[in-house]
Amino acid sequence: MKAALLTVGTEILFGQVVNTNAAYLSEQLNRLGIDVMYHYTVGDNPARMKDMISLAFTDCDLLITTGGLGPTEDDLTKEMVCEVLGDELVLDDETMESLKEYERQRGRKITQNNYKQAWVPSKGIVFANTAGTAPGFAIETDGKTAICLPGPPRELKNMFEGKVKPYLESVSGACIFYRQIRCFGLGESELETRLLPLIDGQTDPTLATYAKEGECAVRVASKRATREEAVKAVDDMTVKVKELVGDFIYSCDDEDMPQVVCTKLKEKGLTLSSAETCTGGLFAKTVTDIPGISCVFEKGYVVYSDRSKAEELGADMSIIQKYGIVSEEAALELVKGLEKKAGSDICIASTGMAGPGGGSDACPVGLIYVALAYRGKYYTKKAMANHSRREVVRHSAVLHMLDLINKNI
Amino acid sequence: MKAALLTVGTEILFGQVVNTNAAYLSEQLNRLGIDVMYHYTVGDNPARMKDMISLAFTDCDLLITTGGLGPTEDDLTKEMVCEVLGDELVLDDETMESLKEYERQRGRKITQNNYKQAWVPSKGIVFANTAGTAPGFAIETDGKTAICLPGPPRELKNMFEGKVKPYLESVSGACIFYRQIRCFGLGESELETRLLPLIDGQTDPTLATYAKEGECAVRVASKRATREEAVKAVDDMTVKVKELVGDFIYSCDDEDMPQVVCTKLKEKGLTLSSAETCTGGLFAKTVTDIPGISCVFEKGYVVYSDRSKAEELGADMSIIQKYGIVSEEAALELVKGLEKKAGSDICIASTGMAGPGGGSDACPVGLIYVALAYRGKYYTKKAMANHSRREVVRHSAVLHMLDLINKNI
Repeated sequence: MKAALLTVGTEILFGQVVNTNAAYLSEQLNRLGIDVMYHYTVGDNPARMKDMISLAFTDCDLLITTGGLGPTEDDLTKEMVCEVLGDELVLDDETMESLKEYERQRGRKITQNNYKQAWVPSKGIVFANTAGTAPGFAIETDGKTAICLPGPPRELKNMFEGKVKPYLESVSGACIFYRQIRCFGLGESELETRLLPLIDGQTDPTLATYAKEGECAVRVASKRATREEAVKAVDDMTVKVKELVGDFIYSCDDEDMPQVVCTKLKEKGLTLSSAETCTGGLFAKTVTDIPGISCVFEKGYVVYSDRSKAEELGADMSIIQKYGIVSEEAALELVKGLEKKAGSDICIASTGMAGPGGGSDACPVGLIYVALAYRGKYYTKKAMANHSRREVVRHSAVLHMLDLINKNI
Repeated sequence: MKAALLTVGTEILFGQVVNTNAAYLSEQLNRLGIDVMYHYTVGDNPARMKDMISLAFTDCDLLITTGGLGPTEDDLTKEMVCEVLGDELVLDDETMESLKEYERQRGRKITQNNYKQAWVPSKGIVFANTAGTAPGFAIETDGKTAICLPGPPRELKNMFEGKVKPYLESVSGACIFYRQIRCFGLGESELETRLLPLIDGQTDPTLATYAKEGECAVRVASKRATREEAVKAVDDMTVKVKELVGDFIYSCDDEDMPQVVCTKLKEKGLTLSSAETCTGGLFAKTVTDIPGISCVFEKGYVVYSDRSKAEELGADMSIIQKYGIVSEEAALELVKGLEKKAGSDICIASTGMAGPGGGSDACPVGLIYVALAYRGKYYTKKAMANHSRREVVRHSAVLHMLDLINKNI
């Protein structure tokens, strides 16, 4: 199946909004085995919108639009789709009722222009919007399918996950199941090399490797007649992947590293404190991005100035001066000081050269040391960020802190 | 002038990369008074690329492409542009020399496929790439202009800023100067209302308001015969804008709030420490995103657990229990404790309800208190984030912390 994506919205053409919807849908469609051939973006202009819809169907079977389904005058996506595919809009009672209910819950009456959202193509399958008001729909004529979805990313994702994915699976007559296996500590090319025996000649399940920021992932996907068969094929392949790269896998459910580590700490009832230098609070920020983490995370120290390292954590400055702040010894000094002060079950510290300035041959930008104190034992790790950009080094250091915890609790 | 943007790259169609180039170029072109009508994205496929280039010129005078200029076999953008505009590629000696020099500096010899990058359209104006290897170019035939730029964002921005902008200005025979004035503490609609006397009926300079995350901005732009005239027109209008909304302006040079505050602290030789609760390290992280800030930022405390607030900062828990942690009194307790412990010139603390859970009528999600200690005086501020999403509340709290510093030093 070949697909085109049409994003409708003047704000995209003004550069005020980055088109993340197109990236999201592309990734989702590729996972479903649908090839995305084109992205188009037009403003809220009916003639240009119609041209783009016609153009998309000249060599694609599927068009997915986002945006232009709202209540205002310039929301015209469904009108133009109907014109091109030869359909007309009819009032959908169910949508009407849910619009009324939506406004009722907010203590408001439905306004005239809100009614506009209850009109849908007569031949369309309606996708109710559980995260907003404008419904989406799919309409198929002569082998050409148009799917129209709302523009706000949260509504779009919600509708795609809950309604569009099952619809596309039902249309293709096959069930697709996939799993994202996330790895840390090896590069994408090494991951691919190790998995080559599984990748070569494999048609189903398929394996594909991806590089993410500072980490990598392998996606195992299967397309079978039933969901059960697809799940079983992916499960079997997952066992084989684990045999080859199990040491590097931290999640088989596409959870990110902070989520995995924090869930583990919650389940084990362990408390956590941190001492940071070059990451400057990024570790604490990353952990506290997760709601409800206050039962785990107790306190964080950002000891940025030299003075503060000794003052706050009682670090022995003679050791730090002897080995340099970016050293295993300094990381250990920090974590031991933290352990005494915070007394949390898990104490984690890091030090590194985030750059851009200050690097040397002995201590290049990107060099990182992390140290962990847990149950009277100390663990350390030396690492090198795979890029010297400041934000990459800092992000990488946080991942190494989390990884050291994950591997040792 | 009407423009279309063509992004070339299979990685965009796979959803592995978000198309930030299109957003960047759209914003830049709009600032130059050029209307962007379409965004197109295609993979590294010559036939589809050619179709899109032809399509763009059916109702636009300007096409800007990004990507597909590199050394590999599937980099075909310039070949396709030449086919559509009836030109041919010729070897550019200057580019050849700079490619050799680039490789020489890295201790490498130029490879066969690298030569490919030195071929440019015979009628083209070459834009040297000072951040990478592939040059860009502009080519004009029968009133249709194609500008081809490299795909890596850093190379693209560099080339646009240094070469393409002056080129577009010279082509249009007019000079455009604009200024982004950034405001904090009022919403976009209020900003627009206050500026209406200046916006209404104004043709040059133009004023446009924008909402950014937790803040807003007004762009003043002028298009005149000479740069001097344009600068003067924008300067004069800036004075009028300041008269109407001066209290809310924190930058007239499009610098962000952390940059503005940290530059001020550096210039004044002031040191800074922070105590955070709901922001969980985001303030320290934001400040230390800036390279070379160690002369300003001394230390940061993330006092996440109740116990740590008393232990670390000596906060009087009876006060916190009486008024609640999200209160002016609690914020003051934290900043006074921080002042005693850190002794930095500037001490800043915040407390708030970041959600998603835990909100109540008395203390809703989004409520924020910030407190500042400076030269023996204390300053506090109560604020409400304009959205209840956890990340929005946390970001907003950090902006209020920076704003309180900015207004009182």
